[in-house]
Amino acid sequence: MPADPYFVDVAVRWSDMDAYGHVNNVAFVRLLEDARVYALRDWFGQDRDLIDDGLLVVRQEIDYLAPLTFDYRPARITMGCSRISGASFDIGYAVGRPEGDVTYAVAEVTLVAYDLQRSTPRRLTETERAQLCAIAGDPAPLRSRGTRAPR
Amino acid sequence: MPADPYFVDVAVRWSDMDAYGHVNNVAFVRLLEDARVYALRDWFGQDRDLIDDGLLVVRQEIDYLAPLTFDYRPARITMGCSRISGASFDIGYAVGRPEGDVTYAVAEVTLVAYDLQRSTPRRLTETERAQLCAIAGDPAPLRSRGTRAPR
Amino acid sequence: MPADPYFVDVAVRWSDMDAYGHVNNVAFVRLLEDARVYALRDWFGQDRDLIDDGLLVVRQEIDYLAPLTFDYRPARITMGCSRISGASFDIGYAVGRPEGDVTYAVAEVTLVAYDLQRSTPRRLTETERAQLCAIAGDPAPLRSRGTRAPR
Amino acid sequence: MPADPYFVDVAVRWSDMDAYGHVNNVAFVRLLEDARVYALRDWFGQDRDLIDDGLLVVRQEIDYLAPLTFDYRPARITMGCSRISGASFDIGYAVGRPEGDVTYAVAEVTLVAYDLQRSTPRRLTETERAQLCAIAGDPAPLRSRGTRAPR
Repeated sequence: MPADPYFVDVAVRWSDMDAYGHVNNVAFVRLLEDARVYALRDWFGQDRDLIDDGLLVVRQEIDYLAPLTFDYRPARITMGCSRISGASFDIGYAVGRPEGDVTYAVAEVTLVAYDLQRSTPRRLTETERAQLCAIAGDPAPLRSRGTRAPR
Repeated sequence: MPADPYFVDVAVRWSDMDAYGHVNNVAFVRLLEDARVYALRDWFGQDRDLIDDGLLVVRQEIDYLAPLTFDYRPARITMGCSRISGASFDIGYAVGRPEGDVTYAVAEVTLVAYDLQRSTPRRLTETERAQLCAIAGDPAPLRSRGTRAPR
Repeated sequence: MPADPYFVDVAVRWSDMDAYGHVNNVAFVRLLEDARVYALRDWFGQDRDLIDDGLLVVRQEIDYLAPLTFDYRPARITMGCSRISGASFDIGYAVGRPEGDVTYAVAEVTLVAYDLQRSTPRRLTETERAQLCAIAGDPAPLRSRGTRAPR
Repeated sequence: MPADPYFVDVAVRWSDMDAYGHVNNVAFVRLLEDARVYALRDWFGQDRDLIDDGLLVVRQEIDYLAPLTFDYRPARITMGCSRISGASFDIGYAVGRPEGDVTYAVAEVTLVAYDLQRSTPRRLTETERAQLCAIAGDPAPLRSRGTRAPR
């Protein structure tokens, strides 16, 4: 991770909690999407319209580390790009709070640049690659990598 | 996988589609939860109340293989148990349709048996372990295992 | 209501419950949408594609009468058309269960036939009007109509 | 409405859009809930825990006036209390944007103060009534009241 990792604060909804009274495991994945939508605007510019120039999620992996409860505060989603190839890249995520040092989840998502008109993957542009390099980060410390003690 | 793999058909909602007109990546994870809720009733009996006797999702990994569109038909979620330890187990998933041989996604979820009263993991009972053995299956063919050609 | 009112059974998801342990008030509105999607196929035929030939919800009103809990059973949504005009119609809803005589909610939704290409309302066709007449029903017994004792 | 109506800005999620590319009609109702959760903290204090001291939605009515699209900006939900009785009250809503004068929806929600332990409605306290009076507003200009030209 660089000295100042990139993050987005996204709103947690009361309805993200399930009958257990915790933010539901699926709602965590929604928070990742939410953060990504804002991040992609920052990284690739407001002129890029997600609807017209698609990015497809082809893979995601998430480790849940601590229960998260709605308490009016946003979630702070820290993100870094840990891999870039011709048409795809990996984003590592950590879900925390603006204050406090609890990490509630870590995740990794593989995205493919996609030409929605032609229904086919497309190469990342030079500008896109430069932007992704600017937020380069370490691979997410997922349990499947052995980087955390198994629970 | 055994000769007759276990599956649950779950309803896809029109609202599971996003502005791309495809079932959203997060909605896929919801379908997995939905299937799990029905499967746990089958496996562990109706007397087990998910609210009182919790199972926590501690990890999930999903590969998206083909776009899924709402077309009134349910999704067929095939499931098998690929690992059992003292307090946790892995379920492998494949998302298809009742007819047709397209696999839209494969996934693996790690669940921990949890005592919600004491807020602590608990050991799986003998009965639970026997049930999970009865639906034993191979590990999900995830890209991260190298079991599929990378996209 | 006619002798045999029209109904659709739609799946309730465990995640439709909120932290109170009841099906959330917003999830009820989702169940109405879900039922409508299936009903419109029955009424207007499979050749009508909801994406291409839009129907816009311009108004909805819902009274919640009893708490609904996830218990694996679907919700039975009974529907009838209580008003037809040139471009719009009202559908009355009652939310129950396949067995049992509890009504959990009653609702009314006003829909406008919409030409998505031209972004303008369009007249209902003769065939559409005939279909709607075939499922004619009384106005929903909403509290705002004074047809139920106020709570 | 008082000179300075009360409002809350709530985040719209990209996923609130449906396959039509507009914020889904059900997602609008979610935005109302979201605004209410924050408003109740403002009105009744942070010590009141929504989980412990419940407020049940017993009725809601919403008119959709203009399509809303995700564009990174929050929705501005303006709220006023238009009726108070012993155990219940009505909140009127208008859904807009922080800038711009388009009203996308107006709504009215009836809430009942509820004792979750005893599963019974409870009387509003003096403090609660005073707070609600402080944000008193006109009834929502719903179509069913004839206060808008029917569409």
